Amino acid sequence: MRFDIVTLFPDSFTSILSSGLIGKALAKQIAQVNLINPRDFTTDKHRKVDDEPYGGGVGMLMKPEPIFAAVESLPVLPRREVILMSPQGQTINQPLLRELATNYDQLVVICGHYEGVDERVLHLVTREISLGDFILTGGEIPAMALINGVMRLLPGTVGKVESLKSESFEEGLLDYPQYTRPANFRGWKVPDVLLSGNHTEIAKWRLEQQIKRTGDRRPDLLKAWLEEKEGKDGELGTSGGD
Amino acid sequence: MRFDIVTLFPDSFTSILSSGLIGKALAKQIAQVNLINPRDFTTDKHRKVDDEPYGGGVGMLMKPEPIFAAVESLPVLPRREVILMSPQGQTINQPLLRELATNYDQLVVICGHYEGVDERVLHLVTREISLGDFILTGGEIPAMALINGVMRLLPGTVGKVESLKSESFEEGLLDYPQYTRPANFRGWKVPDVLLSGNHTEIAKWRLEQQIKRTGDRRPDLLKAWLEEKEGKDGELGTSGGD
Repeated sequence: MRFDIVTLFPDSFTSILSSGLIGKALAKQIAQVNLINPRDFTTDKHRKVDDEPYGGGVGMLMKPEPIFAAVESLPVLPRREVILMSPQGQTINQPLLRELATNYDQLVVICGHYEGVDERVLHLVTREISLGDFILTGGEIPAMALINGVMRLLPGTVGKVESLKSESFEEGLLDYPQYTRPANFRGWKVPDVLLSGNHTEIAKWRLEQQIKRTGDRRPDLLKAWLEEKEGKDGELGTSGGD
Repeated sequence: MRFDIVTLFPDSFTSILSSGLIGKALAKQIAQVNLINPRDFTTDKHRKVDDEPYGGGVGMLMKPEPIFAAVESLPVLPRREVILMSPQGQTINQPLLRELATNYDQLVVICGHYEGVDERVLHLVTREISLGDFILTGGEIPAMALINGVMRLLPGTVGKVESLKSESFEEGLLDYPQYTRPANFRGWKVPDVLLSGNHTEIAKWRLEQQIKRTGDRRPDLLKAWLEEKEGKDGELGTSGGD
């Protein structure tokens, strides 16, 4: 997978791309990340990348020409998507990340900044993606989230395939509570069932906890999960976690 | 505002905190960010921060002791929140960011990693926050989003107060299309109304565009906006954008 990140702040990506699992995935060449700055594609002596909005209003917009020039300088791989990170886009979720990880060889990711980008940049773009219903100073952190979320789904990034499968959102439920040593920490004890060695009981307890927690915190997710389950097997509670 | 970030990967924050508007806000001492590593609070010779989950399962969990020790080493400001970044938490949105920016002096942000953290860490935590319904390799990027989103709301970070007010999500609608020079770019022209100088018409066009775009892309947001509007002034469409 090739990522091309179009950003006025390429330096802001340096440390996140060199640490943790993503740093390792890049070192193993599971993916490549290319950072490209629209400012390097300006033709005026002030290297101007932003300008005032037509019709008035505060703040500055990113001009279309340097973004077009930056994107048009890139190689074009067969299965390519050009993404604008924007609060107006489709909200990131796990199926979207999986689709991007599966169906594409190249993701060009344009990071907006200032008050936004000139609308005509959408002529370049095949998809707008939003991190959520909130505002950040730019598209850099949303792009990092997208890259991280896609990259961890690529074969080889995460050690064991099972480690991806059993996680929250892949199954449509929030995760169950997890415990590690010590069994007693400041008087707070690990639930007995987890120490029992009875795998059927453990799987049952975990699924119950997932359903309870999802119902308490995210009734929207539980409803969708129940509906999907209904559709799949006609009745509730037939598939355990094992 | 003081941010204390509890992370196994403090280096991953270096470049994002030194660039753009956030770098400037930190230089102006509008906020301070303190990075603290649970690994520095381990007491064994291998500096072990993770261990296997009780009850079986793949992956490793963050142990409770180093996280408790790290958080307990921090000063306690009067209005403090201890946040765990977790897919099980409350989803970040603009009202949440505004609440955090307004009501607190200190945000301690714990970044989970590996398969998650020991459940007992919740005894330390006053709030769990999620970036959205998807999975990343750790809580670092979600923490960056939270810090950025809160910090830009602090007085002095963004130049003009109006620059915050008129943005999407503050008003409950997606933004209108924006254009800057050139008026004609590759044959794609800026809408005439924006060149008219008629501010009433421009405001009207922009609100229409916001409503249309929100309805097309996010009917959920439009519904909530219409309901709130209904409650406020009893009828639709009485407040323009000016």
